[in-house]
Amino acid sequence: MDIFSKAFAQEQDASDKLAHFRGKFIQKEENLIYLDGNSLGMLPSASPAFINEVVEEEWGRGLIRSWNHGWYTRAQEAARKLAPLIGAQEDEVIITDSTSVNLFKLAYAALKLQEGRRGIVSDELNFPSDIYVLQGLVKMFGNQHTLRLAKTTDGIGVSLDELDYQLRNDTALLSLSHVVFKSAFMYDMKKVTQLAHEHGAMMLWDLSHAAGSVPLDLNACNADLAIGCTYKYLNGGPGATAFLYVRKDLQEKLESPIWGWFGQHQPFDFNLNYKPAEGIARFLAGTPPLLSLSAILPALDLLNEAGMDNLRQKSLTQTNYLIDLFRHYLQPQGFELGSPEQEHERGSHVSLRHPEAYRICKALISPEVGEKVIIPDFREPDNIRLGIAPLYNTFIEVFEAVQQLKYIVENKRYEDFRREKENVT
Amino acid sequence: MDIFSKAFAQEQDASDKLAHFRGKFIQKEENLIYLDGNSLGMLPSASPAFINEVVEEEWGRGLIRSWNHGWYTRAQEAARKLAPLIGAQEDEVIITDSTSVNLFKLAYAALKLQEGRRGIVSDELNFPSDIYVLQGLVKMFGNQHTLRLAKTTDGIGVSLDELDYQLRNDTALLSLSHVVFKSAFMYDMKKVTQLAHEHGAMMLWDLSHAAGSVPLDLNACNADLAIGCTYKYLNGGPGATAFLYVRKDLQEKLESPIWGWFGQHQPFDFNLNYKPAEGIARFLAGTPPLLSLSAILPALDLLNEAGMDNLRQKSLTQTNYLIDLFRHYLQPQGFELGSPEQEHERGSHVSLRHPEAYRICKALISPEVGEKVIIPDFREPDNIRLGIAPLYNTFIEVFEAVQQLKYIVENKRYEDFRREKENVT
Repeated sequence: MDIFSKAFAQEQDASDKLAHFRGKFIQKEENLIYLDGNSLGMLPSASPAFINEVVEEEWGRGLIRSWNHGWYTRAQEAARKLAPLIGAQEDEVIITDSTSVNLFKLAYAALKLQEGRRGIVSDELNFPSDIYVLQGLVKMFGNQHTLRLAKTTDGIGVSLDELDYQLRNDTALLSLSHVVFKSAFMYDMKKVTQLAHEHGAMMLWDLSHAAGSVPLDLNACNADLAIGCTYKYLNGGPGATAFLYVRKDLQEKLESPIWGWFGQHQPFDFNLNYKPAEGIARFLAGTPPLLSLSAILPALDLLNEAGMDNLRQKSLTQTNYLIDLFRHYLQPQGFELGSPEQEHERGSHVSLRHPEAYRICKALISPEVGEKVIIPDFREPDNIRLGIAPLYNTFIEVFEAVQQLKYIVENKRYEDFRREKENVT
Repeated sequence: MDIFSKAFAQEQDASDKLAHFRGKFIQKEENLIYLDGNSLGMLPSASPAFINEVVEEEWGRGLIRSWNHGWYTRAQEAARKLAPLIGAQEDEVIITDSTSVNLFKLAYAALKLQEGRRGIVSDELNFPSDIYVLQGLVKMFGNQHTLRLAKTTDGIGVSLDELDYQLRNDTALLSLSHVVFKSAFMYDMKKVTQLAHEHGAMMLWDLSHAAGSVPLDLNACNADLAIGCTYKYLNGGPGATAFLYVRKDLQEKLESPIWGWFGQHQPFDFNLNYKPAEGIARFLAGTPPLLSLSAILPALDLLNEAGMDNLRQKSLTQTNYLIDLFRHYLQPQGFELGSPEQEHERGSHVSLRHPEAYRICKALISPEVGEKVIIPDFREPDNIRLGIAPLYNTFIEVFEAVQQLKYIVENKRYEDFRREKENVT
């Protein structure tokens, strides 16, 4: 069968063993193709009723009593569901605060533990706010550290040699996104972690674009620290509480800079002298946002049910398929591939670059009569990110999105739109 | 009429101009008297549908597009509703993170601005986690600061003289809870702020037990900084996003230690060099927990509708009434008043002390057949806190709670229960 035909996409969907998971998500707009699960995952069908239960029964009926009936341990309950998805033990993970606050806490703790070492290494492809947090820490520690950003030569990824060069022999901390937000370039977690350790550096992974989209094995890679959000491929909802991971043997050596109630040894003794809790709980701070925290639970169940290896297999089939369609339909229209060609170097989204990327994205989300609304996202300066969430995206969606991209550029339909300062969606 | 009679309580309720607000809260358990709104406010009737709208429509239908249709400015939207309740301008308040994280950010910023001054003053009645955060900062700044805790002589409050003594001439920051969590002792915000300024110290108020229960005027008191939670008298839901206040003229002088995306000048430029946003937004960090943040909106509407002066008037009538009942019914049974006698020194809860406080609380929440469930909370070592939320608590509830307390002690019903390590509820 012609792999560039619609029939091929339909056949792929028909034989997709994970296809039934699509029905476990709510899609309210019939005419929609959602390819932005790498920014905000769709709403699991089970979530509204579950959240309403938390609101009406736990808050409304249980009131303060719910703290002793599920709330105190909800961060741990969510951690238990997340741990197998990232290859960690359940007492190495906790759900708390935002990704930035977690990065701040762990990077601070690492710099303290590594006192005397003055290098901090990241890369220029990292999510800017991760860089901001590190810049803030450099200032906090009295500008004694140097923040070095490993460089990219192709705009897509960073080589091991370049990391090796930047690490040198004074690095306290190597902090990288496992899957890069623009290009979906994916580091070899094991090799990079090993390289960091060879240089005496601690390794901190930001898993925001990786968790739920690629199988992760923090333990097998001997990773020291990790953080990540839960609202992308984990489908925990807008701004859902983030997570952090600290390898078991490091927990007692590290200290959170924010000495909060929930990280205290015996919070209800109301002792006036802080003593950190044992284990991972010491990285908690204040009272968790229960509604946002609880919403993660039904979402994580779906990923565990589907299995990360199955999801990865489907994701690779779909991103490879998208790249095949790109070559056939879009490369002739001036698009370039902004993601790695090699599947083992790629997460679950694909970036297509085009000088008119912003206006093309505008056209995708503003269809003409009879067309579908297609939601990608745009990233400066010329990236159209197409996120494939294997838990719910179909082959036919990928096919139709490519057809629409081709149509928009062929007919210069993007010329109907203006370049604005704000983000597209 | 006999003010100690049930009929008096009923008459008070009948003439209460705020009585209709009780119907704007959900009470699922008919037999319940909830006197713990100072820990977790009740569920506003409007909240479940509103939260469900955020889940099903904003997340489920709008998906990523909702960021440009309300989510980016939700923290500001909530701040606009909160500002009048605490006497601040709307561009001086923002809803973000937890109370502990906000205290950390603002106290850190204040200590940096006040570099050279080495004193930090709080009091021994402050909520322990506020003390923990300050202890953590002392360590972070290299143990160059001294944390001094003003002492109480009566276990209830702290005198201005004692604060004056502790402030001395080296204090960088005075950090106090405006209403003390155990006793409900309330500082004179204007006088204390003035005292701090006379000593060259910055003033940071924790309004967690004050916001929504007493009228506040941060501007008129010339307060520098404030933080607080939104899940107590503000009824924002369990772990609802906290707030922070920075006086307008200080905003550009202070810098958050956590350099996150939402506090950056132009987040969507994805610039690799952090530049703080203008104004109060610079104290934001990561992506806000949208469900928990949104739940605050309908709750704040109720408080604005009722008006803080009306609420304070009812609150004082009710706490005075409770203290009258205490003298008549409970003092003879061995209870002592753990809150200020003077109404102008008191927030909206009343602490009753008894050597068997823990087991009495257990008995209150575990009624015999035909009795009501009464929810207070217990605070070490011997405090029964009775929180009066004037927005929904009735006089008859206060009356019945006192009768039940009397019955439990008279009949030693608390002897059916064991003292345990965990919190009562």
